[in-house]
Amino acid sequence: MELPSRLMEVAVDQMASLPGIGRKTALRLVLHLLKREEDRVASFAQSFIDLRAGVRPCPTCANLTEAEQCSICADPNRDARTVCVVEDLRDLLAIEQLGLFKGRYHVLGGVISPMDGVGPADLAIESLVARFADAAWVAGTDDGLPVEVIFALPTTMEGETTAFYLYKKLAPLGVRVTAIARGIAVGDDLQHADEATLAQSLNQRLPYST
Amino acid sequence: MELPSRLMEVAVDQMASLPGIGRKTALRLVLHLLKREEDRVASFAQSFIDLRAGVRPCPTCANLTEAEQCSICADPNRDARTVCVVEDLRDLLAIEQLGLFKGRYHVLGGVISPMDGVGPADLAIESLVARFADAAWVAGTDDGLPVEVIFALPTTMEGETTAFYLYKKLAPLGVRVTAIARGIAVGDDLQHADEATLAQSLNQRLPYST
Repeated sequence: MELPSRLMEVAVDQMASLPGIGRKTALRLVLHLLKREEDRVASFAQSFIDLRAGVRPCPTCANLTEAEQCSICADPNRDARTVCVVEDLRDLLAIEQLGLFKGRYHVLGGVISPMDGVGPADLAIESLVARFADAAWVAGTDDGLPVEVIFALPTTMEGETTAFYLYKKLAPLGVRVTAIARGIAVGDDLQHADEATLAQSLNQRLPYST
Repeated sequence: MELPSRLMEVAVDQMASLPGIGRKTALRLVLHLLKREEDRVASFAQSFIDLRAGVRPCPTCANLTEAEQCSICADPNRDARTVCVVEDLRDLLAIEQLGLFKGRYHVLGGVISPMDGVGPADLAIESLVARFADAAWVAGTDDGLPVEVIFALPTTMEGETTAFYLYKKLAPLGVRVTAIARGIAVGDDLQHADEATLAQSLNQRLPYST
């Protein structure tokens, strides 16, 4: 489909470079932008330039921040001894929205996926391991509790591979490693659950409590 | 969902201001942009600023162009006496892609829709009527053929309303008005067609030709 202007071609190409946006959708969005006032298009564009210039990963946990440290790492009320490892910022946000978890995070920025060319070096793994370099602190001998790392990773092959890789790195440091429970989702029927989920929920059964 | 940075909030709001992009998708796209090199984000943003500054509607037909006139209106080989009226640039592009139509276009920029607050004044209707102000030219008395306007508008209530409104404006000017055929799509079964389409295809039957 030949567009009537080169500037439109460029804008559609740029829009279609976003993941999940095809050329038809890109054209629809570009036509929408053309109907806007010039200053609204300028603020639209500027927001992404400002974003890229101003937002960076937290050096400790790779959560995003505009400051030297992310708001969670900078919060003394968040338990530094409990670190929840997530694939992606969106997973962090989903857990934060619960308002339940009082520990800190580590955002890997992906999972190990040889098929997609993502290896351990592409993820924030070195910085995760570095957080547990102090053996006395990990063991809690300086009067705290021992350190716990919670894997909140996807249940895919890639997620499992990543969890295994991290476990091999963390266990020798004396870190207690846990993983979020897999099982039948609240409100779901047993008969509609897939076999792997049902098997895990049975294998990982807990003492019944009321 | 509270984002970890104000710049991210702004960028996600801007992305989610595009039609059909929800906040979850917007966040996904913004996280993608954050992974890009700074100069790639800058060209992404700049493309929309350049687009808005450089692309304007053709004063004759409201097709988009960077020049004084769109490439179709400026092409002396395109028949000025046959004008195809479309809702949207994308409809123009779909017809152009056929490589079949040798006339010109008129892009309304929408259809009359009182529910959405779109009235005739919001569409390029005045400029359409103005194209047929010269009665001698319309009648073809200066040795050409008479003028034809083809409605290629959507088959919705709004499309039909718009066609009727335009017809009332154009018929008194002596313009011959036609509309693209409605009927069973090529390759479709009769039994799966909706009743309205089947009825129209029967009512508008044509002499059989081989």
